[in-house]
Amino acid sequence: MGRGVAHKLIESHLVEGELVPGRPIALSVDQTLTQDATGTLVMQELEALGLDRTRAEVSVQYVDHNLLQADEKNAEDHAFLHSAARRYGLWYSKPGNGVSHPTHMQRFGVPGKTMVGSDSHTCAAGSLGMLAVGVGGLEVAMAIAGRPLRITAPQIWGVRLSGELPEWTSAKDVILEMLRRHTVSGGVNRIIEYHGPGVDTLTAMDRHVIANMGAELGATTTVFPADEAVRDFLRAEGREEDFTELLADPDAEYDVTDEIDLSTIEPLIARPSAPDKVVPVREAAGEDVGQVVIGSSANPGLRDYAIAAAMVKGRQTDSAVSFDVNPSSRQIFSDMTRMGATFDLINAGARIHQAGCLGCIGMGQAPAVGRNSLRTFPRNFPGRSGTKEDSVWLCSPETAAASALAGVIADPRDVAEKMQIAYPELDLPERSGVNTRMLVPPPPRAESLQEELVKGPNISALPDFPPLPDSVEAPVLLKVGDDVSTDEISPAGAQALPFRSNVPKLAEFTFTRIDEDYPRRAREIAQASGHIVVGGENYGQGSSREHAAITPRYLGLRAVIAKSFARIHWQNLANFGVLALTFADTADYDRIDAGDVLILDDLHKVLPGGGDVTVRNDTKGEAYTLRHSLTEGQVEAVLAGGQIPLLASALA
Amino acid sequence: MGRGVAHKLIESHLVEGELVPGRPIALSVDQTLTQDATGTLVMQELEALGLDRTRAEVSVQYVDHNLLQADEKNAEDHAFLHSAARRYGLWYSKPGNGVSHPTHMQRFGVPGKTMVGSDSHTCAAGSLGMLAVGVGGLEVAMAIAGRPLRITAPQIWGVRLSGELPEWTSAKDVILEMLRRHTVSGGVNRIIEYHGPGVDTLTAMDRHVIANMGAELGATTTVFPADEAVRDFLRAEGREEDFTELLADPDAEYDVTDEIDLSTIEPLIARPSAPDKVVPVREAAGEDVGQVVIGSSANPGLRDYAIAAAMVKGRQTDSAVSFDVNPSSRQIFSDMTRMGATFDLINAGARIHQAGCLGCIGMGQAPAVGRNSLRTFPRNFPGRSGTKEDSVWLCSPETAAASALAGVIADPRDVAEKMQIAYPELDLPERSGVNTRMLVPPPPRAESLQEELVKGPNISALPDFPPLPDSVEAPVLLKVGDDVSTDEISPAGAQALPFRSNVPKLAEFTFTRIDEDYPRRAREIAQASGHIVVGGENYGQGSSREHAAITPRYLGLRAVIAKSFARIHWQNLANFGVLALTFADTADYDRIDAGDVLILDDLHKVLPGGGDVTVRNDTKGEAYTLRHSLTEGQVEAVLAGGQIPLLASALA
Repeated sequence: MGRGVAHKLIESHLVEGELVPGRPIALSVDQTLTQDATGTLVMQELEALGLDRTRAEVSVQYVDHNLLQADEKNAEDHAFLHSAARRYGLWYSKPGNGVSHPTHMQRFGVPGKTMVGSDSHTCAAGSLGMLAVGVGGLEVAMAIAGRPLRITAPQIWGVRLSGELPEWTSAKDVILEMLRRHTVSGGVNRIIEYHGPGVDTLTAMDRHVIANMGAELGATTTVFPADEAVRDFLRAEGREEDFTELLADPDAEYDVTDEIDLSTIEPLIARPSAPDKVVPVREAAGEDVGQVVIGSSANPGLRDYAIAAAMVKGRQTDSAVSFDVNPSSRQIFSDMTRMGATFDLINAGARIHQAGCLGCIGMGQAPAVGRNSLRTFPRNFPGRSGTKEDSVWLCSPETAAASALAGVIADPRDVAEKMQIAYPELDLPERSGVNTRMLVPPPPRAESLQEELVKGPNISALPDFPPLPDSVEAPVLLKVGDDVSTDEISPAGAQALPFRSNVPKLAEFTFTRIDEDYPRRAREIAQASGHIVVGGENYGQGSSREHAAITPRYLGLRAVIAKSFARIHWQNLANFGVLALTFADTADYDRIDAGDVLILDDLHKVLPGGGDVTVRNDTKGEAYTLRHSLTEGQVEAVLAGGQIPLLASALA
Repeated sequence: MGRGVAHKLIESHLVEGELVPGRPIALSVDQTLTQDATGTLVMQELEALGLDRTRAEVSVQYVDHNLLQADEKNAEDHAFLHSAARRYGLWYSKPGNGVSHPTHMQRFGVPGKTMVGSDSHTCAAGSLGMLAVGVGGLEVAMAIAGRPLRITAPQIWGVRLSGELPEWTSAKDVILEMLRRHTVSGGVNRIIEYHGPGVDTLTAMDRHVIANMGAELGATTTVFPADEAVRDFLRAEGREEDFTELLADPDAEYDVTDEIDLSTIEPLIARPSAPDKVVPVREAAGEDVGQVVIGSSANPGLRDYAIAAAMVKGRQTDSAVSFDVNPSSRQIFSDMTRMGATFDLINAGARIHQAGCLGCIGMGQAPAVGRNSLRTFPRNFPGRSGTKEDSVWLCSPETAAASALAGVIADPRDVAEKMQIAYPELDLPERSGVNTRMLVPPPPRAESLQEELVKGPNISALPDFPPLPDSVEAPVLLKVGDDVSTDEISPAGAQALPFRSNVPKLAEFTFTRIDEDYPRRAREIAQASGHIVVGGENYGQGSSREHAAITPRYLGLRAVIAKSFARIHWQNLANFGVLALTFADTADYDRIDAGDVLILDDLHKVLPGGGDVTVRNDTKGEAYTLRHSLTEGQVEAVLAGGQIPLLASALA
């Protein structure tokens, strides 16, 4: 059987297991990507590991999320990340250098390589024939420390492209078509591989648009071949020597298949407030628009700005519209400016912002309540814009620019006809305006080992977590119901979020949405013994944030006993040394009350056995049977106090 | 006796009184300027007054302060202001069109005209031979309603300029020299008029820099002649027909005089944290720099960006420096881009931000604690940057760019020598790139009368303030020192600013930079009695924001007793019904402590008399003599609970 690109990428990096969907595999990792919002914790994890220097071929720390600097905390994070990059041998991409994904593609992406990144759109690098997976921060820290990526082997989903996109449509409409067909869960446990003659008609940056928003389909990642289009891209970036061809075999077979004839694509738009609520733009035409934003990793290419600029050149965007343009990187901003696109956008009434994620991750550009905002972004979940009752739509740059001119949602074909706009012939430069002014290389090893981490008052060290004792005798400090989310365990929001680099401070918010007194009780009543939380079904659902494991652990959480766990939080608990146990008989949930003292004995013997665990209720004089489904490696981590002490001693 | 420019401007607009320093006068007002941070309140005042349409020749509503849009409140303000501009016949300058002062100068400024603006840097328009005064929002509302501006006739301070500025110095160094000589109170109750042969060597935009920061000297305003340089400026803006010559008589006499030989000026810098802590740059050279910001109304001209761009062109700003550039207006950004300056800045590592005030009013760009930030801004009061323990310096674009290259504070002459930078010959365009894409004209009268105000959930009504009782017995809730600024009374910054249209919410920030507990005490301890604040010299300096009068008034402030008051804040206090009193003997300041209960009796009889006011200190068993300098009209307003109840009944 012929092999596809994804298959070849996995096989060339497989260090454990076998490529059978559903089975655990381990892959070696060539590159790592961190951004500032998740990166401060990753750097604290590297510190706790006592790592000398990154073991990856290339590790890059980007600053693209927290750029507004409403108070000193952002600037402190930047200084910390800069020092950590120097300390651990990472490249440091300064604030203003741009969004991680297009910047990484332009400066570091190499066909045939693997990458993990602590950002869900890391998969965008699949545009160059890389296998790039978005994961949690600790997984990235482990990859930086030279450990392989452990995942469940996904299905490979071959999507055959044929034909060529019509005028006034572009790559964004292709991925919107995928979302229209398959919804936000259509890609779960799958790698999407695009192939077929239609792929040849797409530039590498077009493919970035499609690969990036594979995240919105829930896919493990997306891959494209490394073909002549990739060679052209790397040549334009002055890096042709980094090109390696990586093509699917002509007879490649896939676990699942689909096909799109590009010539049938028309301008599409995702309605508020989910990326898969996709309809033809004409179905929504005529609705009032208050804001249009062009930018983000979902439409990052020079071409995306250039076509918008060409459309508005010499024209006036509607007076009721705020027309915002976020260059995706310093380099693309430089190229936009050189070719005149910046000038045309400014003169048509655009607000040009610094290069970065900005409104895409709710950092500024929040629209007014209920007023339609059209964005070329990847996501429009409710409230993500910063406005609770927002009304955000996702579309292509063509549809965005057309609607900015019209003042209402408008199909670019209709605006072009009405305003007599010829389809733009874009005169894009053959060579990108490469410079690395804002990309600071890692210092030589000897120098970097001397580097001190710069920690402002708001940046803590990651606390040390001791090993799990053989016996735990501790009170149930909190008993909660079903579907408790990580938002309830460690809240986000304007009060808590600024402390994400400060575990002791952030810990004071733990569980406070459910029980304001929990942090005090944990500190004062159960400090010596530690404590236990009892939960219902689906404990720890929602956001993947590691803080929901770290902050209760910091307050002394030793074990969670629940009816069932949400997958990522369950993994995070193990990663940070908290024992996750389920009831053999869920009826026992009702027999335990908050305040009961529970006793777990012989843990060092019982847990590796993989079987049942007996817990005694000292208060009630009863005993219940519990279970765990930890892997061998996870048991080892829990006993050691988490992955960090385990890895730290392995590294030492 | 020959008359100067200021004298002529006053005489041509005098509608009441006589130009004798210290006497009350009233001047007719030709133009009005409002920005968004103060403007929402002005628009609410127009609504309360029941106005039909502006009576001024030109009224412009700018949006330049609240541009970050961290949530929906900014966008709601913008929608409200846009609707209010349509309703009351104002021009509307959209978010992203730029800072009010340079934009107004370019598009609307006319020699020989008067203007009031609800922004302390309104005086910048003096660069065109206008008499432009920064006042409280309510004075602007009254001017829009056709009322004259009432002020105390100031002294005219003639500052004779001779010689020509050396290379590597510019207008900013001239105003820093004035601050070095005369401090932040040197201009109080004065109009500064620049004259002499040195004036001819300065462009209109250079004069803007000097006129703008007359506000930092505490001056009523600053004027320059309308001469050939002004004609050149207006020609470049396509408005030569708006030019009228306005020159001082050759034998003009001034109440006070000073002289600066421009050829003796060297690069200067204001140390943290006051604009008058001025030293030669070489005295501070070598200190580490974490951030450099170019922009604001204090250095708004194309020339200011162009010289910085020429200095960094082809070079790399230091990797530890965040080099931020805030274009002052859309038009200047367009010209920067056309001439290549934007390109050069981007390539040297600049973060280019949208056109607006941004970091200058603490909207983003907050530096890390204690790390030096060099800014071409007008002000560096503590915490104004958004960082409590900030370290902000003020300097010219030349010094800023030199320091960004060096990574330390550096005199541009020394950097030029070390890096072999020839003094740039700037090739500025003869004609500005005028377009009005983001400047929305007022609709015709009949249409505007139909306009509905768009009020989002965060736009409150103005609170009603009751009349002043005949007797006040209230505690001193706070005692402060000299030079307390309106920034300290009602902070700006990203947290507070979004509540500018919501007095009850904004009140919770009152005085919190000095005393976090003040709002609570005001609400809980002194709610029934009201309370008193005791201040030192120059109480209420800085920004003209009315909120610094309204929010403490909302919390129960009845009287401020100080050694002296800054002019605008003193007026704002009267406008909103707070009694401003000064010590007859400033030594009595030391006799009052926070917590003392003070008693003021027979106010309704004593205040109209205009003489001394006796205050009894019930706690200490003492009495002190106080004075007020309120006009008859102001006494009437204070007794009525403020101007609004008074004016509303007059217009009704």
